[in-house]
Amino acid sequence: MKLVIIGSVAAGTSVAAKARRNNEEAEITIYDRDYDISYSGCGIPYYVGGEVESRDDLTPRDAAFFKKRYNIDVLTRHHVTSVDPEAKTLTVENLETNETFTDTYDVLVLATGATSVVPPIPGVQADNVFPIRNIQNAEATRTFVDTTNPKHATIIGAGFIGLEMAEQLKLRGIDVTIIERVQQVMPPLDKDMACRVEDHLEKNGIELMLGETVTELTGDGHVERIVTESGKTIDTDMVILSVGVRPNVELAMSMGVKIGETGAIAVNERMETNLPGVYAAGDVAESFSIVTGKPIWRPLGSTANKMGRTAGDVITGGDLEHRGILGTGIFKVFGLAVAQTGLSEKEARELGYEVEVLHNTKPDKPEYMGGKEMTIKAVADRATRRLLGVQIVGFEGIDKRIDVFVTAITFKAKVDDLFHLDLAYAPPFSTTKDPVMYTGMALANSMNQSARLITPAELQKRIDAGEDMQIIDTRAAKQYEVTCVDCAVNVPLGKLREAAQDLDKQKPTVVYCNKGVTGNAAQNVLRNLGFTDVYNLSGGNKNYQLFKKYGN
Amino acid sequence: MKLVIIGSVAAGTSVAAKARRNNEEAEITIYDRDYDISYSGCGIPYYVGGEVESRDDLTPRDAAFFKKRYNIDVLTRHHVTSVDPEAKTLTVENLETNETFTDTYDVLVLATGATSVVPPIPGVQADNVFPIRNIQNAEATRTFVDTTNPKHATIIGAGFIGLEMAEQLKLRGIDVTIIERVQQVMPPLDKDMACRVEDHLEKNGIELMLGETVTELTGDGHVERIVTESGKTIDTDMVILSVGVRPNVELAMSMGVKIGETGAIAVNERMETNLPGVYAAGDVAESFSIVTGKPIWRPLGSTANKMGRTAGDVITGGDLEHRGILGTGIFKVFGLAVAQTGLSEKEARELGYEVEVLHNTKPDKPEYMGGKEMTIKAVADRATRRLLGVQIVGFEGIDKRIDVFVTAITFKAKVDDLFHLDLAYAPPFSTTKDPVMYTGMALANSMNQSARLITPAELQKRIDAGEDMQIIDTRAAKQYEVTCVDCAVNVPLGKLREAAQDLDKQKPTVVYCNKGVTGNAAQNVLRNLGFTDVYNLSGGNKNYQLFKKYGN
Repeated sequence: MKLVIIGSVAAGTSVAAKARRNNEEAEITIYDRDYDISYSGCGIPYYVGGEVESRDDLTPRDAAFFKKRYNIDVLTRHHVTSVDPEAKTLTVENLETNETFTDTYDVLVLATGATSVVPPIPGVQADNVFPIRNIQNAEATRTFVDTTNPKHATIIGAGFIGLEMAEQLKLRGIDVTIIERVQQVMPPLDKDMACRVEDHLEKNGIELMLGETVTELTGDGHVERIVTESGKTIDTDMVILSVGVRPNVELAMSMGVKIGETGAIAVNERMETNLPGVYAAGDVAESFSIVTGKPIWRPLGSTANKMGRTAGDVITGGDLEHRGILGTGIFKVFGLAVAQTGLSEKEARELGYEVEVLHNTKPDKPEYMGGKEMTIKAVADRATRRLLGVQIVGFEGIDKRIDVFVTAITFKAKVDDLFHLDLAYAPPFSTTKDPVMYTGMALANSMNQSARLITPAELQKRIDAGEDMQIIDTRAAKQYEVTCVDCAVNVPLGKLREAAQDLDKQKPTVVYCNKGVTGNAAQNVLRNLGFTDVYNLSGGNKNYQLFKKYGN
Repeated sequence: MKLVIIGSVAAGTSVAAKARRNNEEAEITIYDRDYDISYSGCGIPYYVGGEVESRDDLTPRDAAFFKKRYNIDVLTRHHVTSVDPEAKTLTVENLETNETFTDTYDVLVLATGATSVVPPIPGVQADNVFPIRNIQNAEATRTFVDTTNPKHATIIGAGFIGLEMAEQLKLRGIDVTIIERVQQVMPPLDKDMACRVEDHLEKNGIELMLGETVTELTGDGHVERIVTESGKTIDTDMVILSVGVRPNVELAMSMGVKIGETGAIAVNERMETNLPGVYAAGDVAESFSIVTGKPIWRPLGSTANKMGRTAGDVITGGDLEHRGILGTGIFKVFGLAVAQTGLSEKEARELGYEVEVLHNTKPDKPEYMGGKEMTIKAVADRATRRLLGVQIVGFEGIDKRIDVFVTAITFKAKVDDLFHLDLAYAPPFSTTKDPVMYTGMALANSMNQSARLITPAELQKRIDAGEDMQIIDTRAAKQYEVTCVDCAVNVPLGKLREAAQDLDKQKPTVVYCNKGVTGNAAQNVLRNLGFTDVYNLSGGNKNYQLFKKYGN
């Protein structure tokens, strides 16, 4: 069997390695138009910032390694210009010599990856504008920073690469402005979680311009100023483009390979395209959601590896199947970790789920051991009680909780299952009840009608509609006087049993505290006293004030 | 309803709080013979060491808090001396006034916890011998250290509390000797994982005396020397007793409550004992294994909380049920985290499982981001392909991986499921394929016969039996010359394809490298060249050398 793979980063090399592990006889060739193979694209911001010292760290393997270990031929700087899927031939251009030759295949894998989108803005080709995608980009950006000592950088696009770059440049002493077209950073997050990241970026001296579109980069081949649609201007010394990536599907389209609704190559669970003998894997191919079963495209090294290994196995007679993804993502910016998996509230509502939503603020370990607060937003389906998705923002142990949620959601966990998990407890690592368990308990209680939750957005909607409600702030008077929910009355928890006599048991009642715990206690008191329609404000006054500041 | 709870640490207070949340009307009383309530027993070593500054940190809640928040009466220093389950009455002694009175109950919860075992060694009652269980013990130990500046401490018992105490005392400048009756620290671990902890303790200056039994503590009311069964003596300034705990079942037994095979109170999934209206929860009650369904007793705050909340819910008409535990545990000693869940290899074999065993050494994140190695030992059932248990030793991200395994095992994960998990990947947090995924891949490959594993113990057994095998060290000659498996020949991977011509394809063949990765590549080469019976040595030469040093 002659296996030809186009592309040699995460997916392409995974295909090749797995195929070789299964089959010693196959002839395996990888073509890549780039210089480097098997590199860590996700490590690039840390290379530009200097946290990763050597580019060799990002490119641990080269063609010689693959030849020696796997007997696989990797030809870099070789551009596959066309494929004839009938004849099973391909035309390859050696970019070093400009020679062109023809090769043949029995099985072809398209692992051509994705490319940074370069938006069609005047000036975008200037010498101090840097997309962030491959090792060459990384090298050029770092060299520019090292040699010209820029004072100010502008980052266009507030996805995770943009935010990581903002951090790394700021840590090098450069002032940073981020411009993002939508009204929040990290558009896949719900706004009520993204705003926590925005707060943190601003506290760390990053200037945010949200809801702004860049219309022009001015300067003579070297950007000096940025102009936005609303007429703002920013003087800058360099520009990072991180407006997103798109799959490299040109070759696939020219061959007649079917493109899916996400814009990436449509594949089945065996990574087969519509053409016999042609597979696709990695950033160029679409996956599907474990929650909804629908196609999703999330270009990420971990997914590319999964797809590549699956393709390599199938091609060599194995029975591995791709089981889809949750669209899990995580990144860190100025010490704050931000993680997401499954559906956001926005997505879940758009898909028609009737959702239960919790904002749960808890320390990662006991405060006496230095625990720091995290906020978990969890979204569950009322009909099935299944957890649909989770977002977490916090400082320590965020990756742990998201991975536990990932595992639970993968196994179709109901909210009721989380409390029972026998998670590892010791003071240096967690609280006796882990934040994951509290999340499940609060969601289950809300669904059971024993401790119903209301989000700030839902509450505000009802307030704005003029609904007759009792809103009770259960904190100390001093706290109530600083900030509170509009039209709330202050009844500290200790006085609630007594004060309840003067309240209307039939009227919709919302209680709250700072984060939700005392609010829950108050809710139980009222409910047990015969109040029929009592809500606890999800995430408490802290969450409500963020909502008021940033909208939802 | 009148609810009386005996015991006010993790379980007792959980029962009370949950019952109150569900029912505002119940009269709830807690009796406890101790001074403190709701304290963090697991935090005690850190208090003695000074990492936790104030004892208030360990006792965040007092009786006044429970009265104010929950309208629950907590009576400390009140010892319940007897219960009449027919009459539903109890006799209580106020330990401060020595007055005795009678109380009644509708529902009784036994949450009397566990006590440190004080072994019947001559001298054990001396003034510088400290058990570690409650806040009084903690206070006494810390005061002794603060005021007498001991130079040497002896810790009897090498469970996690003993090891944590060893660390905390050493960090205060005290020389520490640990004496343990069995031939390893942390007896629930398999020896091949415990020996990694032993190595680390010794590197950090702790003296270990394993397989030694203390027979006498000599000195006149103040221990000065310890004598062991083998005749060794140790001069010491203080002794910590951490030989284990036992459930406080005296009261239960006197009432006719049934004790289970573990020695703790037998309860059903609703936390009911054999007596009507009498429940038990927390360290005094036994749980059951999620894996085997059999009773197990693991006194731990996280389990106590689960049981307490369940009892509180059931008592007030709820339908919560205890779902058992995995016996998950974690602790940290000199920066090394040690975690365990489910069955050990030893337990699984004793239970009759035909097991697949992997030792997987991987960094927690990319080495270019400062990743540090961990070793995961995973045990799976060949018949069902289900994961049975995991042990992990390493520096960073251990709690994360164990909690992912906990969640997976709870949902009855097969080894094949782990590779597909969409775990959160970014360089500051993990590798593109997380160590959890590698664990699943290697176990699945071994069960599929495509990359069979052999443990050092299994290999040694076959070597010792004189079996005719080919053992191939695939590392560089320089490494082979330092240490290698007995009777192995050296064929570096790069030369293996050629050298394979001179090997016998029918003969059992074992390959290995340092940790297992290159060994796996070599194994694939040979298997694909037609070798029929090839094993990769689990954990490589590193794991084998530990086995040779410490036995198994």
